[in-house]
Amino acid sequence: MKRKSMEGAECPVARSLDLIGDWWTLLLVRDAFDGIRRFSEFQHSLGISKGILAARLRALQEAGILQPVEPEDGGAYREYVLTPKGRDLFNVIVSLRQWGEAHCFQPDEAHSVLVEKSSGEPVGPLTLRNARGRSLDASATEVRKVGD
Amino acid sequence: MKRKSMEGAECPVARSLDLIGDWWTLLLVRDAFDGIRRFSEFQHSLGISKGILAARLRALQEAGILQPVEPEDGGAYREYVLTPKGRDLFNVIVSLRQWGEAHCFQPDEAHSVLVEKSSGEPVGPLTLRNARGRSLDASATEVRKVGD
Repeated sequence: MKRKSMEGAECPVARSLDLIGDWWTLLLVRDAFDGIRRFSEFQHSLGISKGILAARLRALQEAGILQPVEPEDGGAYREYVLTPKGRDLFNVIVSLRQWGEAHCFQPDEAHSVLVEKSSGEPVGPLTLRNARGRSLDASATEVRKVGD
Repeated sequence: MKRKSMEGAECPVARSLDLIGDWWTLLLVRDAFDGIRRFSEFQHSLGISKGILAARLRALQEAGILQPVEPEDGGAYREYVLTPKGRDLFNVIVSLRQWGEAHCFQPDEAHSVLVEKSSGEPVGPLTLRNARGRSLDASATEVRKVGD
């Protein structure tokens, strides 16, 4: 299916999805946050073919989200790390995680947990606030379009 | 391409993406947050064929994210609104929006803005905090896998 490109949209959600609205892309970004750096590690984590993985890594480099680096151990294999633009996807990954925790597991079913490194305690929920620090839910917000 | 299902993964990010990690899905959810309810309005917003839109709306109903409701004006056309599970995707949409604002527009380029309804002021950034309210960035967190 040929999709309609959202590259020129005035909506930041649409432009983001044009770059990263793809299942594999975000799982590669998730793995990179978890410290995965090598082609073979990404492949093992995701269980996809070498050809597909190579294409996805190339697309993420072209989008400025991952960058190749010299291997930490001085070995022969190139490694990949998040750029600052890629690291800014942290909230996207965390929001997907927190929604999944709430809606994609049975109450007695185990799942991985995002914790604060220093304390080992689970993190709190991502929260949106107004300029004065009051938390906002969806019904307290609206989108102002260009020209409104 | 046949993808590997993440339905049974222990990672909440993977399970979420299994349900909603798709460009169209999240744009339909975005439109529903913006108050779009009718088939024809979704179609106009997204510029996709009726067949594809019908399939996507059906998938979102099956996933428990959208539900059909009687039309507000008593007319003949079914309308669609977010379920509570669908409304919980608010942070996913906002995190994509805020990343797009930071990385997908030129400095002088206009984009739509998420504002607080009551004040009209732009919202602040989504923030992750620990149990004591201190804000956390990616480097302050790590994922504890099942069995760790």
